[in-house]
Amino acid sequence: MPHINFNNDFPGIRSAMAYSPETAAPMGVLAEILLRSNDGLTPAERELIGMYVSYLNDCFYCHHSHGEIACIYLGGDRELVEQVRKDYSKAPISNKLKSLLAIAAKVQNGGKFVTTEDIAKAKANGADDKDIHDTVLIAAAFCMFNRYVDGLATTAPTDMDSYPLRAKQIVDNGYGNHVFTNKQPT
Amino acid sequence: MPHINFNNDFPGIRSAMAYSPETAAPMGVLAEILLRSNDGLTPAERELIGMYVSYLNDCFYCHHSHGEIACIYLGGDRELVEQVRKDYSKAPISNKLKSLLAIAAKVQNGGKFVTTEDIAKAKANGADDKDIHDTVLIAAAFCMFNRYVDGLATTAPTDMDSYPLRAKQIVDNGYGNHVFTNKQPT
Repeated sequence: MPHINFNNDFPGIRSAMAYSPETAAPMGVLAEILLRSNDGLTPAERELIGMYVSYLNDCFYCHHSHGEIACIYLGGDRELVEQVRKDYSKAPISNKLKSLLAIAAKVQNGGKFVTTEDIAKAKANGADDKDIHDTVLIAAAFCMFNRYVDGLATTAPTDMDSYPLRAKQIVDNGYGNHVFTNKQPT
Repeated sequence: MPHINFNNDFPGIRSAMAYSPETAAPMGVLAEILLRSNDGLTPAERELIGMYVSYLNDCFYCHHSHGEIACIYLGGDRELVEQVRKDYSKAPISNKLKSLLAIAAKVQNGGKFVTTEDIAKAKANGADDKDIHDTVLIAAAFCMFNRYVDGLATTAPTDMDSYPLRAKQIVDNGYGNHVFTNKQPT
């Protein structure tokens, strides 16, 4: 049961965002830029980073939501998403993405855990400054989103079929306000 | 030395935000709403929560920056800011704020650490749903800001006289883009 009365029955972060649309708006804009940009990292890579940080933060709603979104971008390869979630070092992904996931895991623990060696390894694997910037900010942003979801004890759907449906809406329509409030996608 | 080349010499979060103005914009909007609203919690209470979470996250730049902003709102009472930083339970602040700082500390650790008892205590001390919502989101947002600042190894000024000067600019002008980019306040 949520810690506060949201006055709505939306699941997960959507309940908190519908309760507070004025803060939902900039959070939606930030998610849209960080997760759907094609400049540098792909949307699939961005969602995998967000999913992985959410998994490390034990945020059921977020890691399943973003895992399903990543799955769509990966052509339905749910097995790959699961491999990244459980042990990305053995997943069939690029060394560049592996070294960025290592940075994301450090950020999840705390910003100061990121070392010059982590950065050097990512650069040696082909990451540029913007890739590193975006990875750090995606990981940091999910440390906010995850805490918002669980710190207010929002409700995560246990019907796992609901996650792919919602994921498709986000892939089709983006992280605009319609995702978080009671407005439906147009 | 920063982990990436920001192409600017700004300190702290301003260097990262000037590097990435498109993500800085929604982050500034979020900070403006969360920290300067007078709806419910006061700006002083909001800044004290942000300062305290930044202190727990060991983010030198953020806890000094927001400590100085809180200090201005408190009429220059730097001693009170220091008491909250070091042991808020003994500080001369309301029981309501103490119970919200307890929630913020739980959120800093992870959203799931917040208990129904924490919420009940805050409500018994006069906090309403919006106070609790705002506390959780302020604490969550600082878990993002702090990780952005330290995950990229931004530079924190060691000249402590610079913090009150910057704090006054923010109190006077808010968290608009001029704070983060190379545009000066108008």
